[in-house]
Amino acid sequence: MANPFRLLDEDPSGARRGELKLERGLVPTPAFMPVGTAGAVKALTPDQVAANGPAILLGNTYHLLLQPGHQLIQKLGGLHAFMGWQKPILTDSGGFQVFSLPKHELSEEGVTFRSEQEGQPTLLTPEKSVEIQEALGADIAMAFDECLPFPCPEPVAAKSIERTYRWEKRCLEARKKADQRMFGIVQGSVYEKLRRRSAEQIVGLRFDGYAIGGVSVGEGQDWMKEVVAWTTPALPKDHARYLMGVGLPEDILEAVERGIDLFDCVIPTRYGRGGTLFTSRGRIRIRHRRYRRDKYPIDLSCDCYSCTRFSRAYVHHLFEANEILSQVLASIHNLRFYERLMQQIREAVSAGRFSALKTELLATLKHAPEAR
Amino acid sequence: MANPFRLLDEDPSGARRGELKLERGLVPTPAFMPVGTAGAVKALTPDQVAANGPAILLGNTYHLLLQPGHQLIQKLGGLHAFMGWQKPILTDSGGFQVFSLPKHELSEEGVTFRSEQEGQPTLLTPEKSVEIQEALGADIAMAFDECLPFPCPEPVAAKSIERTYRWEKRCLEARKKADQRMFGIVQGSVYEKLRRRSAEQIVGLRFDGYAIGGVSVGEGQDWMKEVVAWTTPALPKDHARYLMGVGLPEDILEAVERGIDLFDCVIPTRYGRGGTLFTSRGRIRIRHRRYRRDKYPIDLSCDCYSCTRFSRAYVHHLFEANEILSQVLASIHNLRFYERLMQQIREAVSAGRFSALKTELLATLKHAPEAR
Repeated sequence: MANPFRLLDEDPSGARRGELKLERGLVPTPAFMPVGTAGAVKALTPDQVAANGPAILLGNTYHLLLQPGHQLIQKLGGLHAFMGWQKPILTDSGGFQVFSLPKHELSEEGVTFRSEQEGQPTLLTPEKSVEIQEALGADIAMAFDECLPFPCPEPVAAKSIERTYRWEKRCLEARKKADQRMFGIVQGSVYEKLRRRSAEQIVGLRFDGYAIGGVSVGEGQDWMKEVVAWTTPALPKDHARYLMGVGLPEDILEAVERGIDLFDCVIPTRYGRGGTLFTSRGRIRIRHRRYRRDKYPIDLSCDCYSCTRFSRAYVHHLFEANEILSQVLASIHNLRFYERLMQQIREAVSAGRFSALKTELLATLKHAPEAR
Repeated sequence: MANPFRLLDEDPSGARRGELKLERGLVPTPAFMPVGTAGAVKALTPDQVAANGPAILLGNTYHLLLQPGHQLIQKLGGLHAFMGWQKPILTDSGGFQVFSLPKHELSEEGVTFRSEQEGQPTLLTPEKSVEIQEALGADIAMAFDECLPFPCPEPVAAKSIERTYRWEKRCLEARKKADQRMFGIVQGSVYEKLRRRSAEQIVGLRFDGYAIGGVSVGEGQDWMKEVVAWTTPALPKDHARYLMGVGLPEDILEAVERGIDLFDCVIPTRYGRGGTLFTSRGRIRIRHRRYRRDKYPIDLSCDCYSCTRFSRAYVHHLFEANEILSQVLASIHNLRFYERLMQQIREAVSAGRFSALKTELLATLKHAPEAR
């Protein structure tokens, strides 16, 4: 299958604009993928998600494997039909979640884990991960890699990237569906040599796109920037680059500048449910009493459903009253904030002024108006 | 202000069809009012509520008084603007909730209570209740009455209806807003003589509509039917009749047959959040394992968002995965079921075949398909 990515613009800063052409829709990049963990973006209907504009969602293989099971979803017409989302979906390999479980056992074959729900041990292998992602019907599947914790000693990481290489090779060999794209994942912890070596290996396998894994595991923004800066030069320019599990708007800006095209993260929805809202004037904690009587929308410059219909005072009230609607309105707003951020980024790259946008946005993003 | 109600049709059974003409919209009756307790119908945006078709909502004075406070809502433009609902709203008097509190003290002046949130004792009087409901900007306010528990000895109930009469008279005298309707409430527990006496007293005060209170307090459907049958003949035919806090679809059918025009209840949304869904073939508990692989919609004959977009298997999965969206989709469906029930009732009354509809619906309503 042809490379789905097309590079459209390059900014002097290193940022790129492009598009991923998939059967279910075009994804303009840089793009942010909202996370639909268990077949739903938490608290939202697919129409509420779609109204915010994202062109692609991420689904979690691990969660869907456990509940309701990939075979059932396949029988019901695949993940798109099941959850009522007709645009593209990327699924992860399940590895990240399995490696995060306190009880998992690693072998060359794969990872054995016991889920919280079921007592039965389950073996997740490269072949099994591919089978699940094909059953789900993802537009883009992710290769199954070994996810290392942070920190990780260099010799362990060095050994691990070799296994990741063998596993990802097995993923390519296990593919049965011709219409599903697969992205490879580069590992190597925080070691430049290993990141470059892993990138070389994975690129040699010829995937439809490349991801940087093993970030967003507690290493912090400084390491993340380094890892991206080492890795992207080793990735083919004409393929999509995906930084997994990232992140805050400031992390996205840093990564875009280093040549990343795709992102996913639970932050907008998770922060939203907790009452932290992103605005053009900084992050606000809507439960703060200063918003009790505030008649203005969450963000005056936002065009989302929540901002065009309700006041901060109302959203504050809903949180205070523990109304479920608080989580709905906050999630809608934060997802719209992220989508608008990506739009701004794409426009700035086209205009060759990404650095100016980045400087401008970083100056406000970290503000906490309640602290002033 | 003119009587907002117009009687349009009478069915041989005793059921009536009519309309309430309010400044913010026409309410075809019999009508069911979804409950927006704390300034929101639980889990739903006002647009999701509106898409189900209800012409009027109920708001709770007690909850809004405590949080965020009626003065704040007034300052922010009233309850309609605050919660983003532009059609009519009826508010209760706050009495029902206050009398349900374990700690409340009754005097001729009113009821003193301590809320769970605040330690401060608050005095709720007829005058205060009217003031709050005017500040909220309800289209219809309810008079402040004494709500009796069930069971209640006859001498206590007899004394109580006299106080209710004096309190409701004070409500009329306390009114300051000319554009707000007020409905009186008939009490009298389960005593025919007292119900008739109370109806006579309250009708004598000349309200814009009349409600039957003190039902849905654990007395059961048999008493409820009796109470309604005693009271409606004592109410003026040309005014709206509202049975407060009722109820299940089968209760609504019984009450419509006895001449009731208006209903409110938390059942559709509360049952929905718990996974009990109303369908044209009976109530279903969507968490039951028989729905795990069920590709059909919740109700094949329903036109709601949930039924036109998702399978029972998906809704079952969302409940199993504790996804907030489960509560959203279930609430949408149940509210739509209630609205369609009221539509069917109105059409049947117009066609003079309400009894046939009632017989037909009662045969299916109590089914629990899982038990078959």
